[in-house]
Amino acid sequence: MDAGITSKNNERLRRAKRLQRKKYRDQLGMFLLEGVRIVGDALATSLVDELFFGPRLYDTPRGAEVVKRAQNQGIPALKCSDEVLAELTETVSSQGVVAVVRKPSWPLSCSGLMLVADGIQDPGNMGSLLRTAAGAGVRGLLVVQGSVDLYNPKVVRSSMGAVLHLPHWYLSRQDILQLVRENGSTLALADLLQAESMWDVRFPNDVALVVGNEAWGIHADFRKEAQLRVEIPLTGAVESLNASVAAGILLYEILRQRRSIRNSQE
Amino acid sequence: MDAGITSKNNERLRRAKRLQRKKYRDQLGMFLLEGVRIVGDALATSLVDELFFGPRLYDTPRGAEVVKRAQNQGIPALKCSDEVLAELTETVSSQGVVAVVRKPSWPLSCSGLMLVADGIQDPGNMGSLLRTAAGAGVRGLLVVQGSVDLYNPKVVRSSMGAVLHLPHWYLSRQDILQLVRENGSTLALADLLQAESMWDVRFPNDVALVVGNEAWGIHADFRKEAQLRVEIPLTGAVESLNASVAAGILLYEILRQRRSIRNSQE
Repeated sequence: MDAGITSKNNERLRRAKRLQRKKYRDQLGMFLLEGVRIVGDALATSLVDELFFGPRLYDTPRGAEVVKRAQNQGIPALKCSDEVLAELTETVSSQGVVAVVRKPSWPLSCSGLMLVADGIQDPGNMGSLLRTAAGAGVRGLLVVQGSVDLYNPKVVRSSMGAVLHLPHWYLSRQDILQLVRENGSTLALADLLQAESMWDVRFPNDVALVVGNEAWGIHADFRKEAQLRVEIPLTGAVESLNASVAAGILLYEILRQRRSIRNSQE
Repeated sequence: MDAGITSKNNERLRRAKRLQRKKYRDQLGMFLLEGVRIVGDALATSLVDELFFGPRLYDTPRGAEVVKRAQNQGIPALKCSDEVLAELTETVSSQGVVAVVRKPSWPLSCSGLMLVADGIQDPGNMGSLLRTAAGAGVRGLLVVQGSVDLYNPKVVRSSMGAVLHLPHWYLSRQDILQLVRENGSTLALADLLQAESMWDVRFPNDVALVVGNEAWGIHADFRKEAQLRVEIPLTGAVESLNASVAAGILLYEILRQRRSIRNSQE
């Protein structure tokens, strides 16, 4: 069987490797995605440009299926040695496949349940936020410019592929405020001051929930315009929760309320 | 003013530095805690043995207060140069204070709302789980042996000090199952199969909620004995949520139900 790419100087490999840096991701509008399930999932989006895979990918039927699907779609699937594939991934135990994927894009919109990420810096937090928002059925994520890059490999990994599915846009704080205003959405944020328990608040249908930076919280521009200040009840042992955990708790309380209203109307 | 410790070979510094390794934390029953707020908080527990601080700690009134409180309690507070202090911390921008703290301990108990961490490996996830559990007022955390060390510096940091306040014990899976059984607690877990929506389940008062490993989920031993299988409703975009986010959502649904019952009884 063909040994595939065995040199780290291979031109296609080097081009793909550049996507580990934000500068090139921005310039080329592409990013790297790894893992059997997530790459398999991405093949349904027609955003995959190219695939690099190692010999171990054939160890599982699911892995072999990914290569087959790519080939059926006419997507180049390049076999590599383990050493070469390791160049493209930061994870210790890669699952043997890395895809070069075009960044998805969506027409800007703001209705229903929206999330605003205000300066999240930690890639794990941002990934978890994306994953939670996608799971909860959030319509879109408005990311304040200066937050961590959603296509950072660590964000992509901890988002479990949600970055492909959850519509998102990078905007300035002022543009986000204007968008929320124009669409008649209610700006909501978790707060400790002048806040009402999330269990007592009645969340409206069009709501943009702001999640703040890990260290400095939510920016004053959002605090000033917030129409809803909600509190997650806490014992005194900690002052606050992790940003993605807090978002998850609030999003599911919003979903619960919507479901209760639907149930009571039936 | 006294320059304090300026040599990385200082005996006390080297003793403290050993606590970055699990082996010595286990052996000595001590660990390292950093950050102005968290160390200040720890001073109220009488578990702090020693304090190392850098020149920048005096930049804020809160920082200066920490040194004063330690001295008032007769706890050695050792001034260090920035370079020396950096030896004790992994964070890029330390807040200028690291404490040597004795591990807290609690008599084993299992009643009310308990959490079981089954093989959590990621320090950030475990820290966030501790923080969330402490915030939600969980009575105790049963940690399956082989999970990440709760006194790992990254866990301590992302727990925001909750590791000092949330009672926790390392036990084998079998010992946890026996404890839960003996105390008449209901073993509950988040599942995708044969599960009921968390909004439809009525959680009992004594419940032990199991959170699983990031990759392989919850161990078969727990699955077999679970009396309650609950589902967090998800859209199809992701298969599951991050372990600490899922725990947060379930814990707050349990709290909401308890509060509703109390309210309806008033």
